[in-house]
Amino acid sequence: MHADKKAVVLLSGGLDSITVLALAQQQGYRCYALSFDYSQRHHSELAAARQLAAAAAVDEHRVINIDIGQFGGSALTDASIAVPEALAEGIPVTYVPARNTVFLSLALAWAEVLGACDIFIGVNAVDYSGYPDCRHGFIQAFETMANLATRAAVEGGRLTIHTPLIDMSKAEIIRTGMALGVDYASTVSCYQADEQGRACGVCDSCRLRAAGFSAAGIADPTRYRS
Amino acid sequence: MHADKKAVVLLSGGLDSITVLALAQQQGYRCYALSFDYSQRHHSELAAARQLAAAAAVDEHRVINIDIGQFGGSALTDASIAVPEALAEGIPVTYVPARNTVFLSLALAWAEVLGACDIFIGVNAVDYSGYPDCRHGFIQAFETMANLATRAAVEGGRLTIHTPLIDMSKAEIIRTGMALGVDYASTVSCYQADEQGRACGVCDSCRLRAAGFSAAGIADPTRYRS
Repeated sequence: MHADKKAVVLLSGGLDSITVLALAQQQGYRCYALSFDYSQRHHSELAAARQLAAAAAVDEHRVINIDIGQFGGSALTDASIAVPEALAEGIPVTYVPARNTVFLSLALAWAEVLGACDIFIGVNAVDYSGYPDCRHGFIQAFETMANLATRAAVEGGRLTIHTPLIDMSKAEIIRTGMALGVDYASTVSCYQADEQGRACGVCDSCRLRAAGFSAAGIADPTRYRS
Repeated sequence: MHADKKAVVLLSGGLDSITVLALAQQQGYRCYALSFDYSQRHHSELAAARQLAAAAAVDEHRVINIDIGQFGGSALTDASIAVPEALAEGIPVTYVPARNTVFLSLALAWAEVLGACDIFIGVNAVDYSGYPDCRHGFIQAFETMANLATRAAVEGGRLTIHTPLIDMSKAEIIRTGMALGVDYASTVSCYQADEQGRACGVCDSCRLRAAGFSAAGIADPTRYRS
């Protein structure tokens, strides 16, 4: 247990990040949840993040506005690029340029102000192998960089990036969260959820999620549009 | 020369970053200038950045809003922390937590969308030795991380972080810029400039700048308040 140890936890409002938050709390961290309003296509994900942070009774929840959508280049932030409805080879068009680098950098800034030495992020290298910034090598390199970047680095502190889900299948993630009492009905994973947070059922994220519940042998609590 | 090679250049509106922009243009890069509105104490620095970017005829200039000020922890973004008027030991209170990590991450995101393989930043390890994120080791670690973070990394590209000023004295920076025709009268370095961009003359940044012009044997063009 890490009583009184603070951790910054990246919380998107999806299935993975709420599982990570539950794991960090189980390990005894005081959790500071961080979400981003980055002109993603829908805001129901952020509404879910707020609801989940409140339900988990985190020490604090912040939502940072950051206009990476103005750079374009992703179906998640650029309305002119369609969200695909079938899995494809290579890096998906739903990849947001340098997103995890930007998110982890902001988590690092908050961690430094809080005096936290731990950051949790729900990246997964199994289902998101096409996303360069979900891989082990990237996370390790970010941690090395972070340990040279901050006041703590100068003063002898040691920052750790925790990625408890990185090697889990979606079914394992779901079983882990269920054992910790996570309410997945409140999470939004869909890339094009409607304003009520109801899922399309056909995008990559919906397919991975539905297959995960099926493989875990757990009834899918997702609210679908049709 | 690097005809048609694109570079993202971080442009604060201060003396160092405009010198970097002039160097990148001299090397033949097509320059995409990036500035940040991060709730810094004054906006005259951003006004200077806009004016300098226009005068340099950059290919594009973007200003990204990013609310790292809400984390607090720095005299530059937190009005409750006074800007010091004498140089002190250790990390200055004007250090903004993880600022260069955040700025470089956003430069990386834009570079990825532009297809640029070069980022220029005006960090200086001589005068800013107290800032952890102005040192060689940090920049090298960021570059390593960046080369694992992006689509280009997966597809075989190679990103370089250029820090042409990192080992220069302020006088060398000024002489370099003067030789390239930089108009330093339009730059704002002061940590507490007024709305017209006039400098206080007493903060660390003003002292370093004034000493630089003196050491370079060049008349200081800075507009002071008193």
